[in-house]
Amino acid sequence: MHQWETYLKVHRSRFVEELSEFLRIASVSSLPEHAGDVRRAGCWVAERMRAAGIEHVGIMETGGHPVVYGDWLHAAGKPTILIYGHFDTQPVDPVDLWTQPPFDPVVRENRIYARGASDDKGNMLIPILSVESLLKTRGELPVNLKFFFEGQEEIGSPNLPDFIASHTELLACDMVLSADGGQWAEGQPSLTLGLRGLCALQIDVTGAARDVHSGTYGGTFRNPIHALARIIAALHDTDGRVAVDGFYDKVRALSAEERARLATVPFDETDYRSKLGIDELFGETGFSTIERAWIRPTLEINGIWGGFQGEGTKTVIPSKAHAKITCRLVPDQNPREIRGLVARFIRKIAPSGVTVTVREVASVAEPFVVPEDFQGNQAARRVHRELFGVEPYFVRMGGSIPVCGLFLKHLNAYTVNFAFGLKDENVHAPDEFFRLSSFETGQRAYVRILEELAAG
Amino acid sequence: MHQWETYLKVHRSRFVEELSEFLRIASVSSLPEHAGDVRRAGCWVAERMRAAGIEHVGIMETGGHPVVYGDWLHAAGKPTILIYGHFDTQPVDPVDLWTQPPFDPVVRENRIYARGASDDKGNMLIPILSVESLLKTRGELPVNLKFFFEGQEEIGSPNLPDFIASHTELLACDMVLSADGGQWAEGQPSLTLGLRGLCALQIDVTGAARDVHSGTYGGTFRNPIHALARIIAALHDTDGRVAVDGFYDKVRALSAEERARLATVPFDETDYRSKLGIDELFGETGFSTIERAWIRPTLEINGIWGGFQGEGTKTVIPSKAHAKITCRLVPDQNPREIRGLVARFIRKIAPSGVTVTVREVASVAEPFVVPEDFQGNQAARRVHRELFGVEPYFVRMGGSIPVCGLFLKHLNAYTVNFAFGLKDENVHAPDEFFRLSSFETGQRAYVRILEELAAG
Repeated sequence: MHQWETYLKVHRSRFVEELSEFLRIASVSSLPEHAGDVRRAGCWVAERMRAAGIEHVGIMETGGHPVVYGDWLHAAGKPTILIYGHFDTQPVDPVDLWTQPPFDPVVRENRIYARGASDDKGNMLIPILSVESLLKTRGELPVNLKFFFEGQEEIGSPNLPDFIASHTELLACDMVLSADGGQWAEGQPSLTLGLRGLCALQIDVTGAARDVHSGTYGGTFRNPIHALARIIAALHDTDGRVAVDGFYDKVRALSAEERARLATVPFDETDYRSKLGIDELFGETGFSTIERAWIRPTLEINGIWGGFQGEGTKTVIPSKAHAKITCRLVPDQNPREIRGLVARFIRKIAPSGVTVTVREVASVAEPFVVPEDFQGNQAARRVHRELFGVEPYFVRMGGSIPVCGLFLKHLNAYTVNFAFGLKDENVHAPDEFFRLSSFETGQRAYVRILEELAAG
Repeated sequence: MHQWETYLKVHRSRFVEELSEFLRIASVSSLPEHAGDVRRAGCWVAERMRAAGIEHVGIMETGGHPVVYGDWLHAAGKPTILIYGHFDTQPVDPVDLWTQPPFDPVVRENRIYARGASDDKGNMLIPILSVESLLKTRGELPVNLKFFFEGQEEIGSPNLPDFIASHTELLACDMVLSADGGQWAEGQPSLTLGLRGLCALQIDVTGAARDVHSGTYGGTFRNPIHALARIIAALHDTDGRVAVDGFYDKVRALSAEERARLATVPFDETDYRSKLGIDELFGETGFSTIERAWIRPTLEINGIWGGFQGEGTKTVIPSKAHAKITCRLVPDQNPREIRGLVARFIRKIAPSGVTVTVREVASVAEPFVVPEDFQGNQAARRVHRELFGVEPYFVRMGGSIPVCGLFLKHLNAYTVNFAFGLKDENVHAPDEFFRLSSFETGQRAYVRILEELAAG
């Protein structure tokens, strides 16, 4: 057994106690009353990094919740790896569905229960501990490391684009390891080769200058809700394809080989439907459910409102009706370009007699893909095989992690997802937990991937 | 000058003071905290009726806000007329747009300003004063009278159907004069020959069992907002006709003569558009705007909601989306039958992959028409000509006054609108007022119509 391995074993229970301490800090980034706790969590992380032997550790201001930076840069000639994670958490509502208070961690059956246990405090603490085990036993690391932990991931990292763009020298690296995320299933690792991008819009439809009586005026002018419904209905054809002109023009077609590889990822439709609680799946004709979720772009209405929403009846024709749209995008769609195409299409199909305004919303994320043969992926794959004894699945994700696109854009660095959460760990839900077995496997995995990356 | 006319003149300023006193009672029926005030207003009305010489006056319970009844039934061989009005008011919001406190009446330029001045306290007080002038000068009335004043008109008279149905003997009459409503314009009387009916539904669309992430799941199953938009878009064809099967089957066609008479009512489209603040009118092809508003049935969405309505972006596919529908109906559409047809049509066109529930909402109103040659209309017409010197317009109203349908159904009695509000009097809005000239003309008009009705 390596010395670092022995170190991790010996300090096992101290690490769990430290994770507990970290989890006691209610660092909910979306709630202003917890802003101090988010900062306190950042300070805790900084202290813990210093204790591990990481250098130049500091809290840095972003204009919102702070980030924590630290590095160890003494591996001359070796690559520089940036490790990413976040120390903020989701809110705890509905708190009455928790078995114990969400910020009062308990260990049951080798799992630690608390808000943030899996997402992302347990996961982001792992590389710090791995680095400690190497520095305390060998006094050095196989590669150069930079740590970049943020406190606003759960609110969409509003200050991160500016921060990264203005700190490209500080953050410069050869690649990123993201300690935020997970594996496919217990005993089954996975490598994420792509994430969808995002753009957002809002439609505002105005009819009369004020709400008017639907008896007196009904039938004589265009009801803005009717107009909005017509617009939304026209955004997709009956085959589930987005009807916006040019929407698919730049979508990079997947090779037959890539599609075949996706098809090897197991997918149980009955299970998928039953988890969603729906009878029937529906989506773009000609693609599997996994393809619809991972490699095909979408346009979804996230919210709609206008007029009376109370109990009973109010006979009004509302002045205004609204809808929120987000599109998920795939290579090589450009979020700003697609946003413009959607806006133009809506203006084109807007019925007369109402004023239709399309607002382009600031949130954007570039679609992200990393080549399967990227050396970071191949290093991760070797570690997966070694620790799990099986080949990882090569997967994509339907969601967007804007930071991956930011690292690629500003640092020219690919991100490899290297984290150990599992899908059943109630992330963003009551009774979130993290497996202590994953916590330990993760620590060994991080040492091993740093060694693999040093070998090149 | 008749003695009753002299009486009205002599007591003119007392009547205005009494109206002021009545207007000081904040009888807002929609606000539970004002329930006591609604009852107080009812007591005030009962006292005022007794003072006028009306008999058998009493407050009667309905299960909600009370009604006030009274009668004078000593005109043997003469018709019995029921006089209807309401002593509750709309709320006062937005109260900061009022020039003076809404329940602190002031007289300016021969207008009395207060919430309820025109709708309906000023109007409903008129027939009481007219009756007083006759009883105090002649000691008798030319016809038998029943008074039926309610305190829940502004909340849709929820307890009135049951109350009327269970008091048909008490309320039995030959016809109804409604003291709630108004005339076309200053110096231009009108007779309302029809009101539209009403039925109401709610659509609830459910997709996944809970809100889910639009990145992870977007594109793989039917978004309930998309489904709802498709349903709403399919409820009308592009010519503005309601597409529901059978919707128009029982609509009674208007004769060329009836349409020609409607066309004589002046309609200024530019003015109508500018009041609504819209550029273009839109409605069922083949009908004028007045016809669309008065004699054609409609289907309007009064409200829609589902998913995220806040600032910014929330990438959710909501579990549920909802819409509220009301239809305005014309003779001979049956509200319950049309409600069933709409529900059946929505179920028929509902897309797969979501659960679409259609709830039939209790609010219904029968469409109402009264023949132009009905003797009550002809009596009103003679009084109009005598007092205004011009022929009344024969109009319809796009709105619904359920009580007219109830009187017809349960008492077999037509209602003649005989009230003196005007369109510019800020009914339901800040700075509501009533013209004192209308208050006085109305008092003379009520004496005269009772005499005309006695003459038969």
